Amino acid sequence: LIRNPNLLAESTKPVPDYLYHFGLDTSMPLQEMFGDVKFVVAGGSASRAKILASMLYADPVISGRPRPIPGLEPTPIGKTDRFSLYKIGPVISVNHGMGMPSASICWHEIAKLLHYAGAQGVTFIRAGTSGGLGVPPGTVVFTTAGVNGQLKEHYSLPILGEKRRFSTQFSPRLTQDLYQTALSLGLPAALGKTLSTDCFYEGQGRIDGALCEYTEADKFAFLHKLEAMGVKNIEMEAAQFAAFTQRLGVDAALVCVTIVNRLLGDQVAVSPAEIESFVNNGLIAILALIRQRLTAAQ
Amino acid sequence: LIRNPNLLAESTKPVPDYLYHFGLDTSMPLQEMFGDVKFVVAGGSASRAKILASMLYADPVISGRPRPIPGLEPTPIGKTDRFSLYKIGPVISVNHGMGMPSASICWHEIAKLLHYAGAQGVTFIRAGTSGGLGVPPGTVVFTTAGVNGQLKEHYSLPILGEKRRFSTQFSPRLTQDLYQTALSLGLPAALGKTLSTDCFYEGQGRIDGALCEYTEADKFAFLHKLEAMGVKNIEMEAAQFAAFTQRLGVDAALVCVTIVNRLLGDQVAVSPAEIESFVNNGLIAILALIRQRLTAAQ
Repeated sequence: LIRNPNLLAESTKPVPDYLYHFGLDTSMPLQEMFGDVKFVVAGGSASRAKILASMLYADPVISGRPRPIPGLEPTPIGKTDRFSLYKIGPVISVNHGMGMPSASICWHEIAKLLHYAGAQGVTFIRAGTSGGLGVPPGTVVFTTAGVNGQLKEHYSLPILGEKRRFSTQFSPRLTQDLYQTALSLGLPAALGKTLSTDCFYEGQGRIDGALCEYTEADKFAFLHKLEAMGVKNIEMEAAQFAAFTQRLGVDAALVCVTIVNRLLGDQVAVSPAEIESFVNNGLIAILALIRQRLTAAQ
Repeated sequence: LIRNPNLLAESTKPVPDYLYHFGLDTSMPLQEMFGDVKFVVAGGSASRAKILASMLYADPVISGRPRPIPGLEPTPIGKTDRFSLYKIGPVISVNHGMGMPSASICWHEIAKLLHYAGAQGVTFIRAGTSGGLGVPPGTVVFTTAGVNGQLKEHYSLPILGEKRRFSTQFSPRLTQDLYQTALSLGLPAALGKTLSTDCFYEGQGRIDGALCEYTEADKFAFLHKLEAMGVKNIEMEAAQFAAFTQRLGVDAALVCVTIVNRLLGDQVAVSPAEIESFVNNGLIAILALIRQRLTAAQ
């Protein structure tokens, strides 16, 4: 689960290795704690990681228990200052904060954690929220590829001061399986590209940020251009997530619900309760796929 | 506090305007709640925003009370799903998460909040943690300018699909005042440039990430190049913060403590208690400056 010769060679391996942003390190019994992990499901917010953990705990196939144990509730493992990490059965539920840099820290340290734990055949899924393009709020978008802020299908990252480019395709089979699962459950679903930006306001063509130097007409020209490219939604993590998991050689999919139709407005004006029910649409599809795969593996 | 003609024109202004990531909107009495704000102090973590709020509350000059009121403690305003925002006297203490995209959302919505509240003469300060270059852990670095991952002194952001570049200088007078305050208090302090990256591992030349395609010698060549440029520390927010506040026309400074000397190693191996005492070094200087300025304004 890692591609780093320094961590594989004894001479340059840090001992112990601190996974700083999770407050975990290799002096802990990571193999016992995380060795059986098969799925990592991550979203932006800590409270949603907790909600997902509770759903996983209540699912007998996933938790491995016919019912939750009275008096025991999912509790974060490690420190919660940056991220909140839960583990139920073979599934990690975690939040990665907002934006590619924050999520990148989470993915690096989760991959290292699972490497040290000796976990095998792990699938990474991001379950997020997004702004939709021409689809109604509540639609679950399954992403084929990430598109960056300059409308290219790659992720750019300066490494040692030099810009590098990485492909942003998601795993086609996993993505199709999730999409078909959602359709079979009657959920509102779409398949398409996802624009991932470094700014929620100017980066996504909103005209309601603290700074804005363009007009509403410019915004619509931008959004229609995206739509014509096959972009179905906009968020802030897709390109880095696809690039990272591809480079690592792990299966990954992006499942985002839309909470606004950007062709109709910039403001997220649906209620918190509506957002939670939309997010549930995505989680229902993910849980169904995890159940299927765990059952098939038995 | 905003530079957006759409929000100033009645025809395109959203009513109410939802500050989505804070769970606040313009139907609330924002002027009463935030009209007197003069300083915004922000860091990455939610728990640190709370610690700072408690320090502000205990300070008679800042809180305006000789002592804290028994039974009343600083409590976040709005939702805490993404950020935690506290207000004590004329100071907001808030966390912006990790990385420029996350912080960008926080700054846009705080600027809009203060615009709607009618706040005047506001100063923005980021109080963060960082990796040091050639300075011992615990040093408080006051940043003259942000440097991006390609080692340029500008911040790049694609807007409507086109890359734009913005200057990353911090307010010289405010930065000098903070630096001199730290020196006069006997705190370990340094003045210099700050590299801000989109990745904690490969972006900062660490060799202990899940992915790494370069050697320890490459890393040191990179770090020495930074040092020769006058870079004193590395974090993940400087360039966007400088660019945003400059474009907005507000005074801003970056005050980061170092928690590791990257010339000696990649791992953050100091204890949580040591990190808190280092962070306090930075906060002590900021609080002293706020006290000075509030007293001078009376």
